[in-house]
Amino acid sequence: MELKILSNINSPVDLKNLTIGELNILAQEIRETLLEKISQTGGHFAPNLGIIEATIALHYVFNSPIDKFVFDVSHQTYPHKILTGRKDAFLNKDKYGTVTGFTNPHESDHDFFTIGHTSTSISLACGLAKGRDLLNGKENIVAIIGDGSLSGGEAYEGLNNAAVSGKNIIILVNDNNMSIAKNHGGLYKDLELLRETKGKSENNFFKSLGFEYHFVDDGNNIEKLIEALKKVKDIDHPVVVHMHTIKGKGYKDAVKHLEFYHYVSPFDLKNPKLMLEKKGESYSDISENFLIKKAKGDKSVVVITAATPGSVGLQKFREECKEQYIDVGIAEEHAIALVSGISKRGAKPVVEAVGTFLQRTYDQLSQDLAINNNPATIVVHHGGISNSSITHYGIFDIPLISNIPNIVYLAPTTKEEYLAMLEWSIEQRQYPVAIRVPNTAVISTGEEVEPKFDNLNKFLKVESGNQIAIIGLGDFFHLGKKVYDELKKIGINSTLINPRFITGIDEEMLYKLLEGHELVITLEDGVLDGGFGEKISRFYSDKDIKVLNFGAKKEFVESVPLKELYERYHLTEKLIIEDIMKIFK
Amino acid sequence: MELKILSNINSPVDLKNLTIGELNILAQEIRETLLEKISQTGGHFAPNLGIIEATIALHYVFNSPIDKFVFDVSHQTYPHKILTGRKDAFLNKDKYGTVTGFTNPHESDHDFFTIGHTSTSISLACGLAKGRDLLNGKENIVAIIGDGSLSGGEAYEGLNNAAVSGKNIIILVNDNNMSIAKNHGGLYKDLELLRETKGKSENNFFKSLGFEYHFVDDGNNIEKLIEALKKVKDIDHPVVVHMHTIKGKGYKDAVKHLEFYHYVSPFDLKNPKLMLEKKGESYSDISENFLIKKAKGDKSVVVITAATPGSVGLQKFREECKEQYIDVGIAEEHAIALVSGISKRGAKPVVEAVGTFLQRTYDQLSQDLAINNNPATIVVHHGGISNSSITHYGIFDIPLISNIPNIVYLAPTTKEEYLAMLEWSIEQRQYPVAIRVPNTAVISTGEEVEPKFDNLNKFLKVESGNQIAIIGLGDFFHLGKKVYDELKKIGINSTLINPRFITGIDEEMLYKLLEGHELVITLEDGVLDGGFGEKISRFYSDKDIKVLNFGAKKEFVESVPLKELYERYHLTEKLIIEDIMKIFK
Repeated sequence: MELKILSNINSPVDLKNLTIGELNILAQEIRETLLEKISQTGGHFAPNLGIIEATIALHYVFNSPIDKFVFDVSHQTYPHKILTGRKDAFLNKDKYGTVTGFTNPHESDHDFFTIGHTSTSISLACGLAKGRDLLNGKENIVAIIGDGSLSGGEAYEGLNNAAVSGKNIIILVNDNNMSIAKNHGGLYKDLELLRETKGKSENNFFKSLGFEYHFVDDGNNIEKLIEALKKVKDIDHPVVVHMHTIKGKGYKDAVKHLEFYHYVSPFDLKNPKLMLEKKGESYSDISENFLIKKAKGDKSVVVITAATPGSVGLQKFREECKEQYIDVGIAEEHAIALVSGISKRGAKPVVEAVGTFLQRTYDQLSQDLAINNNPATIVVHHGGISNSSITHYGIFDIPLISNIPNIVYLAPTTKEEYLAMLEWSIEQRQYPVAIRVPNTAVISTGEEVEPKFDNLNKFLKVESGNQIAIIGLGDFFHLGKKVYDELKKIGINSTLINPRFITGIDEEMLYKLLEGHELVITLEDGVLDGGFGEKISRFYSDKDIKVLNFGAKKEFVESVPLKELYERYHLTEKLIIEDIMKIFK
Repeated sequence: MELKILSNINSPVDLKNLTIGELNILAQEIRETLLEKISQTGGHFAPNLGIIEATIALHYVFNSPIDKFVFDVSHQTYPHKILTGRKDAFLNKDKYGTVTGFTNPHESDHDFFTIGHTSTSISLACGLAKGRDLLNGKENIVAIIGDGSLSGGEAYEGLNNAAVSGKNIIILVNDNNMSIAKNHGGLYKDLELLRETKGKSENNFFKSLGFEYHFVDDGNNIEKLIEALKKVKDIDHPVVVHMHTIKGKGYKDAVKHLEFYHYVSPFDLKNPKLMLEKKGESYSDISENFLIKKAKGDKSVVVITAATPGSVGLQKFREECKEQYIDVGIAEEHAIALVSGISKRGAKPVVEAVGTFLQRTYDQLSQDLAINNNPATIVVHHGGISNSSITHYGIFDIPLISNIPNIVYLAPTTKEEYLAMLEWSIEQRQYPVAIRVPNTAVISTGEEVEPKFDNLNKFLKVESGNQIAIIGLGDFFHLGKKVYDELKKIGINSTLINPRFITGIDEEMLYKLLEGHELVITLEDGVLDGGFGEKISRFYSDKDIKVLNFGAKKEFVESVPLKELYERYHLTEKLIIEDIMKIFK
């Protein structure tokens, strides 16, 4: 592909002297670059295709990095990266891996924050603006936020405060009528009305909060965008620019199937249907099939997601059980308080959540749900050590959830155990229950497990031995089994335990281990600090037995291969055995 | 006081046949009851005086508990309690202690949730409504929310979802133009406009979200309220009723000094000025005086509160350092993201927060602040074991904050150490720092401490001994000192350590303790699960030394006397020594 314009763009200043015609060609070149690159590597597809023109206009009108852009959730910043000296990472196959998928201050002075969760940009921009004012700066601060992110409480808190700041802050609302999934909430009817009336509707959410308001009908028209942004540049008060863009613009199949093309795995641009092929059964499929059956048999069962039906696996459920499906949009706090209320009224709510996003709702877990001790089920997906982006690293759910009183947090090890826990949790009326979906391929024993977990904190002894006891939590039970097998090979007949419960310890069983065992090891797929193993260490700390806790170190990591992390944390049977042997020396 | 009407009211049905004249007398009787009772016991004063008429109207029009009321934050429910069979707790001195200060399902079927944090009512009400719909119920669900609570993100997430529920849900906005402190944010200008235009202003926040909207000009007029509520009773879609009430109504001094009279200690109704007398210096005073001096000397220092300038001690700062003071309203998420931005731009932000409310912002602490590793200071007040209401029990901050990477959480033991940590934190540019204000009377040594804590996780050995090492964290260092003294009396010369850092351990010092010590005890003023002591236990779990962790059990407790909790958790020197001796037996 020939890049007439892009080949000369190495920083935003290179845009300044281009004509509108050249900027339009540049947009086309960036679009082609993105289509090729993302289809090869995977990544956020439709969000980036939709914001190319706006990114060009922003960099044309403003003077980054003096003027500062804060991109909400920042998965739509590939065009921004291309324009700010990082185009090689999108053009050169050998350099594809050299930039992250989100803004990253370690990569460029044009990025101010590492961002990956939604709804944060306005508050962060308010901070940059307040810092500017305290230090007598003069630059523009621009937050760029998608309509989907506007349903999150943090975005609203930011808007409410930005509105009265009395100083320069520009909020560019990128309205493509779509979150990851379809948007939900009253605000979206207002945005629709504003789009239909070209910004002239009487009811205007932004004006009601006190903002000066501008509307840009075609947010993929560079000329119109430049005109609009020039009007607000160097403004001395808060302003909202509401632009209407086409998510997925330039790839027909994406515009048709927006939810699907939000984030893609590598695919063939010319034959996109292949993407729909599925590989094997996942825990999400198991959840979904179970919940569909459950919901059809019991009209009081209701399943809630906070805008991630794809990540947790609810697309079929959504179709088949309409009235028993609620997508609250990006609004995790609401989701948790909601299920407390649903449960209090006697129905049976199940939240399907992504672990890292549950972080957004600690207080609701504690106050709305746990203090009230209402029976609701929270299914926690993608908790555990992974090669994910730093902002989506899922090792913190155990300290987050398990140190709150009243909540029962369960760690199934197999498909059958998972289903038994889910069934038990939905039907019991005593506890708020969270279930940690194994972060692995499905392991099935074929042997049904009884859905009975009322006897809280009873661990399951799977193998009885002596000398060493292995407590393997959830998906790491299987790592425990490997250690057990290795120990057997060298003549040690150890004890193997599936604790099942994260939120409490089986004191009776732990006391019994004091007989005949010299060492207890714990294995957990999460951070050690504040986690499960430390509770075992505390229990044994005044007793005559040693303990080794295996799990992740308290640190943020950016897209590190799983194998490397497992080595780093000694989470392979070989390294575990080595550590055990140091004790026995 | 003669109670002509109230004496015959034992449940809401007793209201139904009263005339408006009688209801007005009832309001007066409740007002006099509250004035007398709250001035004697202390409690939420102005909020309850303002909502008497509305509570009577609600119970007159609706059929509680079939129709369900959810009171936001619920500190304004004394009138509700009086009308729902609990008047004795307000009339009879011997029974003053028999009800809690918030709604409480254990007390009455008219209460559905234990609530104490703000902004939750709409989401909880949405839950009751969805449960109703799933189970084919027909009742009214009413959320009663103050204007102050509307700035919290959870309230907005609730509104945004309630607006599109398509079913009965009634949101009564109790607008008294006041949070605990003055309100801040764009929404409040809109509410003001709506009050001024009697609800007719073009810009209407609620309508913009899609709500049917009603305005009641005089929310202390029972007749008008009944009329308005009758119109929306049994409505089949979401509606907002916006009423204007007078906070503190009926007590002149309260209406004049609203912030002061939000919550009161016992005082003389006839001579209220006595309330203003202060007792001794508190850690809040120390903070405030330090920050005033600091801010005056450095214009880049800025102090942020989320609507609690009184609780954290910022009223003088607010007056003296206007431009360097930000009250974001009840918007903790915004507060934390904001300071990350302020810090990124080079200024020096300090958040003064109440520990239990930091729970509302875990994800912002982790994502906006810690991942970005921006240097900001968070001062955590009221963390620790206390006799507070269950919803304000402050033992969870250590697991919450200290298991997030990058954050440095400090635990000062004295005034001088606290000030040194504050000075260091504000000036350093490397870490997000939280400081846990001692939950005790001020302890001052008179000896200045150097503001140098760059050498992270270095514990301070205060006394060198052998056999036993005592690690006393923060305010519990002094308990450790008492244990040290008691041990000395019985001939044991122990080691006494002030760890200073909560977020990491001093491995070098801990290794050295292995020589000459048989037992390490840890003391922390917080929950053990996920806390500081468990990290020490983990460190020693594979080594030849015993550890005992002292702290609170993982449980929610409701207003239990401190002494009782200390006994329960063995947090007295006597009980600690007994536990130590069991090890040495």
